Amino acid sequence: MKSILVLQGPNLNLVGQREPSVYGRESLTDWMTAQLPRWAREGAEVHIIQSNHEGELIDALHAHGFKADGIVFNPGGFTHTSVALRDAVAAIDAPVIEVHLTNIYAREPFRQHSMISGVCAAVISGLGFAGYEAAVQYVLHH
Amino acid sequence: MKSILVLQGPNLNLVGQREPSVYGRESLTDWMTAQLPRWAREGAEVHIIQSNHEGELIDALHAHGFKADGIVFNPGGFTHTSVALRDAVAAIDAPVIEVHLTNIYAREPFRQHSMISGVCAAVISGLGFAGYEAAVQYVLHH
Amino acid sequence: MKSILVLQGPNLNLVGQREPSVYGRESLTDWMTAQLPRWAREGAEVHIIQSNHEGELIDALHAHGFKADGIVFNPGGFTHTSVALRDAVAAIDAPVIEVHLTNIYAREPFRQHSMISGVCAAVISGLGFAGYEAAVQYVLHH
Amino acid sequence: MKSILVLQGPNLNLVGQREPSVYGRESLTDWMTAQLPRWAREGAEVHIIQSNHEGELIDALHAHGFKADGIVFNPGGFTHTSVALRDAVAAIDAPVIEVHLTNIYAREPFRQHSMISGVCAAVISGLGFAGYEAAVQYVLHH
Amino acid sequence: MKSILVLQGPNLNLVGQREPSVYGRESLTDWMTAQLPRWAREGAEVHIIQSNHEGELIDALHAHGFKADGIVFNPGGFTHTSVALRDAVAAIDAPVIEVHLTNIYAREPFRQHSMISGVCAAVISGLGFAGYEAAVQYVLHH
Amino acid sequence: MKSILVLQGPNLNLVGQREPSVYGRESLTDWMTAQLPRWAREGAEVHIIQSNHEGELIDALHAHGFKADGIVFNPGGFTHTSVALRDAVAAIDAPVIEVHLTNIYAREPFRQHSMISGVCAAVISGLGFAGYEAAVQYVLHH
Amino acid sequence: MKSILVLQGPNLNLVGQREPSVYGRESLTDWMTAQLPRWAREGAEVHIIQSNHEGELIDALHAHGFKADGIVFNPGGFTHTSVALRDAVAAIDAPVIEVHLTNIYAREPFRQHSMISGVCAAVISGLGFAGYEAAVQYVLHH
Amino acid sequence: MKSILVLQGPNLNLVGQREPSVYGRESLTDWMTAQLPRWAREGAEVHIIQSNHEGELIDALHAHGFKADGIVFNPGGFTHTSVALRDAVAAIDAPVIEVHLTNIYAREPFRQHSMISGVCAAVISGLGFAGYEAAVQYVLHH
Amino acid sequence: MKSILVLQGPNLNLVGQREPSVYGRESLTDWMTAQLPRWAREGAEVHIIQSNHEGELIDALHAHGFKADGIVFNPGGFTHTSVALRDAVAAIDAPVIEVHLTNIYAREPFRQHSMISGVCAAVISGLGFAGYEAAVQYVLHH
Amino acid sequence: MKSILVLQGPNLNLVGQREPSVYGRESLTDWMTAQLPRWAREGAEVHIIQSNHEGELIDALHAHGFKADGIVFNPGGFTHTSVALRDAVAAIDAPVIEVHLTNIYAREPFRQHSMISGVCAAVISGLGFAGYEAAVQYVLHH
Amino acid sequence: MKSILVLQGPNLNLVGQREPSVYGRESLTDWMTAQLPRWAREGAEVHIIQSNHEGELIDALHAHGFKADGIVFNPGGFTHTSVALRDAVAAIDAPVIEVHLTNIYAREPFRQHSMISGVCAAVISGLGFAGYEAAVQYVLHH
Amino acid sequence: MKSILVLQGPNLNLVGQREPSVYGRESLTDWMTAQLPRWAREGAEVHIIQSNHEGELIDALHAHGFKADGIVFNPGGFTHTSVALRDAVAAIDAPVIEVHLTNIYAREPFRQHSMISGVCAAVISGLGFAGYEAAVQYVLHH
Repeated sequence: MKSILVLQGPNLNLVGQREPSVYGRESLTDWMTAQLPRWAREGAEVHIIQSNHEGELIDALHAHGFKADGIVFNPGGFTHTSVALRDAVAAIDAPVIEVHLTNIYAREPFRQHSMISGVCAAVISGLGFAGYEAAVQYVLHH
Repeated sequence: MKSILVLQGPNLNLVGQREPSVYGRESLTDWMTAQLPRWAREGAEVHIIQSNHEGELIDALHAHGFKADGIVFNPGGFTHTSVALRDAVAAIDAPVIEVHLTNIYAREPFRQHSMISGVCAAVISGLGFAGYEAAVQYVLHH
Repeated sequence: MKSILVLQGPNLNLVGQREPSVYGRESLTDWMTAQLPRWAREGAEVHIIQSNHEGELIDALHAHGFKADGIVFNPGGFTHTSVALRDAVAAIDAPVIEVHLTNIYAREPFRQHSMISGVCAAVISGLGFAGYEAAVQYVLHH
Repeated sequence: MKSILVLQGPNLNLVGQREPSVYGRESLTDWMTAQLPRWAREGAEVHIIQSNHEGELIDALHAHGFKADGIVFNPGGFTHTSVALRDAVAAIDAPVIEVHLTNIYAREPFRQHSMISGVCAAVISGLGFAGYEAAVQYVLHH
Repeated sequence: MKSILVLQGPNLNLVGQREPSVYGRESLTDWMTAQLPRWAREGAEVHIIQSNHEGELIDALHAHGFKADGIVFNPGGFTHTSVALRDAVAAIDAPVIEVHLTNIYAREPFRQHSMISGVCAAVISGLGFAGYEAAVQYVLHH
Repeated sequence: MKSILVLQGPNLNLVGQREPSVYGRESLTDWMTAQLPRWAREGAEVHIIQSNHEGELIDALHAHGFKADGIVFNPGGFTHTSVALRDAVAAIDAPVIEVHLTNIYAREPFRQHSMISGVCAAVISGLGFAGYEAAVQYVLHH
Repeated sequence: MKSILVLQGPNLNLVGQREPSVYGRESLTDWMTAQLPRWAREGAEVHIIQSNHEGELIDALHAHGFKADGIVFNPGGFTHTSVALRDAVAAIDAPVIEVHLTNIYAREPFRQHSMISGVCAAVISGLGFAGYEAAVQYVLHH
Repeated sequence: MKSILVLQGPNLNLVGQREPSVYGRESLTDWMTAQLPRWAREGAEVHIIQSNHEGELIDALHAHGFKADGIVFNPGGFTHTSVALRDAVAAIDAPVIEVHLTNIYAREPFRQHSMISGVCAAVISGLGFAGYEAAVQYVLHH
Repeated sequence: MKSILVLQGPNLNLVGQREPSVYGRESLTDWMTAQLPRWAREGAEVHIIQSNHEGELIDALHAHGFKADGIVFNPGGFTHTSVALRDAVAAIDAPVIEVHLTNIYAREPFRQHSMISGVCAAVISGLGFAGYEAAVQYVLHH
Repeated sequence: MKSILVLQGPNLNLVGQREPSVYGRESLTDWMTAQLPRWAREGAEVHIIQSNHEGELIDALHAHGFKADGIVFNPGGFTHTSVALRDAVAAIDAPVIEVHLTNIYAREPFRQHSMISGVCAAVISGLGFAGYEAAVQYVLHH
Repeated sequence: MKSILVLQGPNLNLVGQREPSVYGRESLTDWMTAQLPRWAREGAEVHIIQSNHEGELIDALHAHGFKADGIVFNPGGFTHTSVALRDAVAAIDAPVIEVHLTNIYAREPFRQHSMISGVCAAVISGLGFAGYEAAVQYVLHH
Repeated sequence: MKSILVLQGPNLNLVGQREPSVYGRESLTDWMTAQLPRWAREGAEVHIIQSNHEGELIDALHAHGFKADGIVFNPGGFTHTSVALRDAVAAIDAPVIEVHLTNIYAREPFRQHSMISGVCAAVISGLGFAGYEAAVQYVLHH
């Protein structure tokens, strides 16, 4: 059984409620919860943590980063500025897959650079919920 | 009765104590508390929240942003860098008026750009405590 | 009785006629003229000058800047480039409140920097006509 | 009969006299005056205004911009810096064709960006006097 | 049956041969050819085109872009500079998924910006061969 | 009889089919072919070449550049990046008129600089098909 | 007896565990705890606080900044971006010595600028654990 | 007898009244008027023009620039931005000496570049009133 | 016998014909052909390829790069922008010597940076035809 | 006995005489000479060299850099620009500790970057004379 | 009697010999020597020092800067880069007048910024030898 | 007999001793001395000067620059910053060939721009000792 952390950054609790023209109306949490049994059958024990607090995200990376087999991380608005999150990702053992619901490279200029990507294993941007699926599959099979 | 949130960012708890040559010696909290009865008579129920934690400010925006009639927001030092706060402001329904005690455009270069302004309804900078008054009046009458 | 100059820069004579989706359909001059009696009752003698000529704006700042109690200044398109207007504002005694109808920080990049703000007492941007009201009140009560 | 304004910015009164190696020795005004009868026969009533004063150019755009069928505008040295002229062009109804005698993109770096082009219908640069002809023809036939 | 084009840019014919420490030793073409029967069973008719010529890539986008259900595109070194490829992607009907074998955001600065991403549906970077799989699956299921 | 080459860069074969809100629905090739008899009567033998291959455009400039009386060149997406095309234009004898259907200076920032303009005789941008007409007329009469 | 706060920012709880090639294998906390008796004998009462939460660091600066004789501060990844921490350092009375284990000026470009240094009394970078010693001695003797 | 124009830009009418800590308390006009007889004895007929209007400065350069022996020009705040004044200086025959009362290179960054200097014969900055004297002497003896 | 490829980029077929004040009047091809017998006697079998097509240059690097002893490469206008050529040079085994006829560092700013140099063994710029000689000699003796 | 070179760059001979509000009134040389006996007792033979000549500083680094146990280097104004000193520091065996009397990161922007730091072992800035003490102790104990 | 140092930086020994089209053919030293008797009669004892060594210029500023009444300094090529010379100028008591023979603001971009000007009393650029005269007169009369 | 100066900048006396992984272990001086008899036989009288002092390099350029037939110059770390050396190279008659042992364009960003190249005849970078040979041969035969 592989252990995977899905870590959700600020404002992602609002997906399904916020800016539906951009993110759609389905709740990300509902969708993800619905996948848990299937992921379990495929061999992945998936934990989901969401926080609007940068410090809690760092704490979660420390807590899971030395025992999980992989981390699927959507850092939300912290993506573009947080050196502390970058340091936390670099410090842990588990490979991190950065995921964004939308294609950030097609949005405002300040969203087109990620401070985190340089220490992640891979980046998936714009596949919507399917991006999480692809990241989980990648950890499962590598 | 209109519901208004006054949201205060980091270090604003020190106003009246910190750098009096810049911010004066009166406590911002004392002054604001003193206005509450008058604002109530004019038809505004005003809530005041101050925090040095970015995550708590995001939480507060989420909690009030779908039911308040307006939010008066001084993001303090987070003004210049926080994409997560920008996303929170963009995600909620209530219009946000950004307020700064001093004229930030007359200070150090790194203070002259606000990451938040682009998603606010308006910006008031340099009117001191009167900036909060103007913002509350604006929400009351629009 | 306090003496206040409201100084209007280029193209502001067109407000109410130009880009109604941005500025609305009401004439700024009509609105302001309608406030004059009230402002007089509140103790402010308000003069209004509009010009599309940078030199005339400088001349007006020189003429009023050593006797007015405050100047409410919307520099229009000169906001972003005019060192000469900045010098004129810096040279006079009266405090200057910079006002913009729209939130300039939410528009094109070249509109997000003001060459004038660094020598103004305060900046109000995005309150529409109410910005002039707030600025007049500020001069009246400080 | 179509109404066309040809608006000439600063220093263009010197063409034919100034820097002949760059602009040639023929007076632009003489040439343009000579075309008036032909343009009239082709259906265009052309007015020509030249000014070294930015404010007068704005005034002229306001005066003609809501009744002319098109404006042929060489903003001269104001091309590269004037937000106020850009605003005036954006505020009026008539389409504006920006014209430069020389190819500004082959000159000094500070001449290679136009603050005006972004709100013009088209730009013609480097055709000499023929640029005015092409612009007038364009307004005539569109 | 869905029609999918996998379009490979310059130097990708060398994968498996070139810089094995970066790209591994397996030939990308061999791997992809081996997937064709499975993809066919899953409902995707996949065409593979590789070229070192920018013009041939544009021609291929034109030829397939109005009839394919999706295009999986690794533009190689053209990623970072080609406006012509961007225009071709923008001009066609089929959604384009940009794929890179390595995480380009962790490489040299000039590789961290893609001229193409802004007009793609999504970007996958750093999943190795699995990135092609994820992109094909995405087209299959959306 | 004057010899003129009209040289069309990448993606211009799609005009009339691609992004009609930007470029219109008429095929550029059809329109241009329809003008050939008239241009012949006016004294111009016009050759039309379109290619999506940078190298073929260079070859065409070499082949015609020492015998044509003028070249009307729309470099498409190569406009903004190609030093090789700039060198080819600089190397030949025929004057080159750069033409763009749309006003590139009113589009994305990366489209507002042309690498080619600095060695062209003139630039026409935003006149649509009429830009080609104006360029051909210019070569005919100078 | 002098009162000194040693304030440790994000990820510093991992030192001794994380990236040993960069930071060594000894735990920073262990080492520091071992110095406490000696520092006490030399006249310094040293408090140690570590947090991954920016808000808690601000709270700590507020709590100790008006009574401590000096603060030794390693802001970790917040060094490079936090205006809020800079404001907190500027607001308090105690002098702050910024300390980094490694020589940050020899690392990635984004680590070579500190947002905090401009309001600190001094900066020590690259002395490893000895940097804390030097900072404590400095507060003790000045 | 040599003919010299001293041309004064915006706000220079305030010298002696404005910012005495920077410019001193003596009126520049008074001082200059007092020199006229001496300059006449030394062979220079000096005309003095001051204007806050960019267009009037251009007009003055046109009017004197083809008959004066030299022009001493303090462009004030227009120094840093005006391409139109640069064009006017470049267009005339008389050599122009740019003069600033203060050392502009020791002031704010936006004052340290002059758009005019590149077409002037010389620049004198920081000599106070003596800068005008030196410029007049230079024209007299060259 | 050593095998050497001399690879010539766009427009170099025109040397001797184009801009003689810059490149001289002798044909580069003629000169190089004349050296072949001597180079053969010295032990070098030299192949010469010239193309205006970036893709053909990449193909040539692939074809020769795993069997030649060295490649002398003048990338012409592709020097400054081509990541694809850089990737091809990096992918092959043969050392590449970059050669330019003129001293590119003394020309326009956009010519002073080479995208290729970072993966070449050496760069020779400004020696004219002798640069090819020096590069061939270098491959012969190392 | 450890051998330590203290190397002082330009203008440091004036400390105690120059800008006392910045550097204090005590002579740095006097203070350092007074420490020599104590340092000798602690086991350090310290040599002090001061020069205003970049070349002499390089010569001194060469002369001591292969036999000293450590070098304490205050490069003064050469800190910010000298690649030659950087090369000399990189070329020698002895570890170099860069020291500045004041906190350079709190001064003018051009002083906030050091060309030398990237090849030093550590940097101490703003501890005054105590910075030299800390550096000497560091060499003594490591 | 006033004491004045004229300090000449690198390559100024060649004036009269080097680039006569830029600097003229007269030797600067010869001219200056010829002025010494006149300057003596006017009350100035003038010393002239020229050196190509930055360190010697610093030494000279130290030696004369605390006893001369003024220093006329042409830093030559060190103008644009030397922080050490800037520090030396800032450290001494004598006012420094920076002089350049040519108008540096009309030359290459890297010559248009002076690292020294910010700490000089005034700058004279482009008056040729007369610049030295004006500077000496300024020291004599202030 | 041709007279050639080989001028070596700072730290080049250490080649063969310093960073052997970069520069190799052979002394450059030894190698060069060994070539002197051969160069004499081929017709070149070669003088070799090395200095770590910028001023001495300028003096050497002045001393040899008007009588040597060519100068082979490796400016070492002064390459990237010295305007004074650039001026000296521009002032002399002898053509200068700039030589670097390593390929500077493949090293740190601050090493990839040379302040000297713009006034040299040619640049050779990365050929090791053979670069000096190629430069001497070039002077011998041109």
